[in-house]
Amino acid sequence: MAAARLLVSCPDRPGIIAAVSRFLFEREVNIVSSDQHSTDPEGGTFFLRMAFTVDHLTVSREALAEEFAREVAQPMGMTWRLRHLDEPPRMAIMVSREDHCLLDLLWRWRRGELDCDVGIVVSNHPDLRADVESFGVRYEHVPVTPDTKPQAEARALELLAGSDVVVLARYMQILTRDFLDRVGAPVINIHHSFLPAFAGADPYRRAHDRGVKMVGATAHYVTEELDAGPIIEQGIERVTHRDDPAALAHVGRDVERVVLARAVRWHLEDRVLVDEGKTVVF
Amino acid sequence: MAAARLLVSCPDRPGIIAAVSRFLFEREVNIVSSDQHSTDPEGGTFFLRMAFTVDHLTVSREALAEEFAREVAQPMGMTWRLRHLDEPPRMAIMVSREDHCLLDLLWRWRRGELDCDVGIVVSNHPDLRADVESFGVRYEHVPVTPDTKPQAEARALELLAGSDVVVLARYMQILTRDFLDRVGAPVINIHHSFLPAFAGADPYRRAHDRGVKMVGATAHYVTEELDAGPIIEQGIERVTHRDDPAALAHVGRDVERVVLARAVRWHLEDRVLVDEGKTVVF
Amino acid sequence: MAAARLLVSCPDRPGIIAAVSRFLFEREVNIVSSDQHSTDPEGGTFFLRMAFTVDHLTVSREALAEEFAREVAQPMGMTWRLRHLDEPPRMAIMVSREDHCLLDLLWRWRRGELDCDVGIVVSNHPDLRADVESFGVRYEHVPVTPDTKPQAEARALELLAGSDVVVLARYMQILTRDFLDRVGAPVINIHHSFLPAFAGADPYRRAHDRGVKMVGATAHYVTEELDAGPIIEQGIERVTHRDDPAALAHVGRDVERVVLARAVRWHLEDRVLVDEGKTVVF
Amino acid sequence: MAAARLLVSCPDRPGIIAAVSRFLFEREVNIVSSDQHSTDPEGGTFFLRMAFTVDHLTVSREALAEEFAREVAQPMGMTWRLRHLDEPPRMAIMVSREDHCLLDLLWRWRRGELDCDVGIVVSNHPDLRADVESFGVRYEHVPVTPDTKPQAEARALELLAGSDVVVLARYMQILTRDFLDRVGAPVINIHHSFLPAFAGADPYRRAHDRGVKMVGATAHYVTEELDAGPIIEQGIERVTHRDDPAALAHVGRDVERVVLARAVRWHLEDRVLVDEGKTVVF
Repeated sequence: MAAARLLVSCPDRPGIIAAVSRFLFEREVNIVSSDQHSTDPEGGTFFLRMAFTVDHLTVSREALAEEFAREVAQPMGMTWRLRHLDEPPRMAIMVSREDHCLLDLLWRWRRGELDCDVGIVVSNHPDLRADVESFGVRYEHVPVTPDTKPQAEARALELLAGSDVVVLARYMQILTRDFLDRVGAPVINIHHSFLPAFAGADPYRRAHDRGVKMVGATAHYVTEELDAGPIIEQGIERVTHRDDPAALAHVGRDVERVVLARAVRWHLEDRVLVDEGKTVVF
Repeated sequence: MAAARLLVSCPDRPGIIAAVSRFLFEREVNIVSSDQHSTDPEGGTFFLRMAFTVDHLTVSREALAEEFAREVAQPMGMTWRLRHLDEPPRMAIMVSREDHCLLDLLWRWRRGELDCDVGIVVSNHPDLRADVESFGVRYEHVPVTPDTKPQAEARALELLAGSDVVVLARYMQILTRDFLDRVGAPVINIHHSFLPAFAGADPYRRAHDRGVKMVGATAHYVTEELDAGPIIEQGIERVTHRDDPAALAHVGRDVERVVLARAVRWHLEDRVLVDEGKTVVF
Repeated sequence: MAAARLLVSCPDRPGIIAAVSRFLFEREVNIVSSDQHSTDPEGGTFFLRMAFTVDHLTVSREALAEEFAREVAQPMGMTWRLRHLDEPPRMAIMVSREDHCLLDLLWRWRRGELDCDVGIVVSNHPDLRADVESFGVRYEHVPVTPDTKPQAEARALELLAGSDVVVLARYMQILTRDFLDRVGAPVINIHHSFLPAFAGADPYRRAHDRGVKMVGATAHYVTEELDAGPIIEQGIERVTHRDDPAALAHVGRDVERVVLARAVRWHLEDRVLVDEGKTVVF
Repeated sequence: MAAARLLVSCPDRPGIIAAVSRFLFEREVNIVSSDQHSTDPEGGTFFLRMAFTVDHLTVSREALAEEFAREVAQPMGMTWRLRHLDEPPRMAIMVSREDHCLLDLLWRWRRGELDCDVGIVVSNHPDLRADVESFGVRYEHVPVTPDTKPQAEARALELLAGSDVVVLARYMQILTRDFLDRVGAPVINIHHSFLPAFAGADPYRRAHDRGVKMVGATAHYVTEELDAGPIIEQGIERVTHRDDPAALAHVGRDVERVVLARAVRWHLEDRVLVDEGKTVVF
């Protein structure tokens, strides 16, 4: 069963769903699920995700895209993306030394939970090579020091070229604006706190100092401003006065890996749209 | 801003969304949100909820309904309901002695969280009269004994006549099949366990005996079979070995009232459709 | 069954539990539950909560306290408190216009969930008088304007005199350092965010602007620094991109009242000790 | 720092804590944490867990145990266990084909989260050999057919001999009473439902048929009656009408592995005592 997904955002106005659904129906596309969101019915932004089967498509894939652009998207000022599911996205992972998020992603990928090709893992440490290679995935060690950061980022960009999404699975280096401009794919990070609380370094230590009763984790798209990008997913777990910072980290690991895995899966399933520093998650 | 909601279920087939959205667009109805669900794209059932504004409606409400029936619903075999929001549903509540679910509903209703008219509270005990009347709501005491159950149900049916929904906010009497056949409105119950665990009497005692680590609550539509109707919402809270049955009941009360309030609100917002003993909650 | 509770904090050292438990055993006090916490076995602080029955106490209550002070507490440098449960603490509540936390506390108190005397509710608005008086509780309206703040605080202090704990159930005025110095009882506040995120004004608006996927609430002891006092309890609930600030407030209300009620109950049950800006909650 | 833990259960009576803590204090054992539970202060059962450091122990380990037995345990009718932490328990794992619980345990063990020796993994399928051996753990394939079940159990008993705990990490065979009698160690199972709901086969399918709004998992000690042993830990996650049985299983896997890991860790940390078909978890 051939399937595809359409993501749309555009200025809101009446008739968008009617236009899109008629266009698809006329080409014998069968809508399987449809989600929409309007930030404001008067003058806001309209977001749409449709999943459909294209077994009986009466035109070619190329024609479908061209005609949609000409007949629907351009007249309505849409930003849009149409993806056929038999062309899975290519995912790259960056990691430092902590293995829990990385292994969890690789396990899920091997089990078929993440519909993508994992092309490469890039790390600033050599530690996790054997684990990664046991999944049949290429591992490249790109050391980073204050002096070599530009060359390291250049090397990473070469290795990541062609990726559709880059996941920072506890990658403990700050990426430069230049890197983000040139990587050419969305970058998803997991931060080990409930943002905006404890943005920046050493969140479990600071959570302990503040005496919070829960620790959290936040998966977000990376932007130039540290830990301030659009939030995709958050999670939380209870802790008590008995937990020292190491215990908070222990509890937090279970939250981090689940939150990151969910964010990555939703991204791969084309469920996430960005709306002015926030996300719409269908 | 005049608003309305459409609920639809029908055999799945291509073109449903196109037909509905075109019909509405042509009458200058503006779709604000749209949710759909298909149990199976091939041969399953299709469910749809649309919320829209009708400020610029080009036909009368009556014509809108008639034309929708003739042009869309009948050709596609739809079960459907169209409700204008300025005609709020009438809600009745039945209760015994426990006040936590009742007071929570009345308080939310007073705050404007529940869009309905609360016409009456019927109880088999006199205890909660002052509380209910302080909200300006009529309270009727209809005692029930094994001998007088038929007369009591007949009296309750008189009092509930005209209700659009009946909520059992910890009403500790089993309703007969005859009552359910004649009440003419959906009946929502809160059961104080995570169904299907501990269906029937005294769930907190039985949860304690089994040594569970969480207690739950379940809001469901009432059917003839006790505690077996379609589940609308469930909730859960942690407990420990330190909690005796009274402590479980204490913890559970907080879950019960929130779960029931959510289920009632979703019902009043036309978010719940029944699908062969289960619910679709949009 | 006469019962009492002992709360202790002191420099950690071997033999504390042995000393306390022997002292109690020799006076035929029967320990029902015992919790302890050490921040660090070497050189840290030791915290202890014991609950016991005193039906067979071989000395007077006064002698029990005096002997404990002399024989155990002073030699070990303890800060301690012994409370007999037949002497319930007096609780005062301060509130502005939002009723959800206030009513929830009063319901729970009437139901017997909160073991205290509620002496008075002080509000800077007249709105909630009827609700409060229906519980048989005194309501005093003490208006606060920028010009009259000193007089208003002086009046509030008169009304709160003799209270063992003051609960701010959404009291939207900042208390001065002078007020806190003179009130002579711990003050518990509910803040409508997951602290330290969104400390200060208008947290739901700011949570919406940041696009968080969960909203929270935090109950804490009030200190001079705004929203920075020791955290007693926190809670959280999921939200989505569909929720505007009003919807976040709606969801948040259910979290606020449960978190505040838990914190107040734990405080009344002598479960909370303060440790350098944080709490130990037994 | 040498450490040990004491677990006690006995008929409740005054003076138990005093006796135990004095005994330990006199031998220069320093209590680091202490938890107790009484099912009923009058005539119930008393449970105690103490963790302590034994760096300055004034007697030998053997003498400590002998003297405790003679001076404290026997006079008070205690069931007790004293374990020194430098003698970690030996854990064996049984598994079928699903890898998520197994890999999660092995990965936590490698990270140092589980204080034990993992001696062997026994499986009725050959599938997971490479994964297990990559952790340096022995893997034994013991096929089970209806005809060979007695021989298979006999072979498994040989392989498990000397284990202090056996964990069924999704082992899809029912163990006989004879096996349980002879294995000589507690057996912990993970069941993929919120027990007692959906005990027995195919719980996700049955959860889907019933239309529950949450799926759960339960870790429990195995007893002769299927899925009826003492519950150690439970967890739960939300699902919706969109989730088919495969999706419930997908969501449930994340709950299962966390619930099982917690139960195993608590067991290894001597936090779990059994009390008439239920557990006390300190």
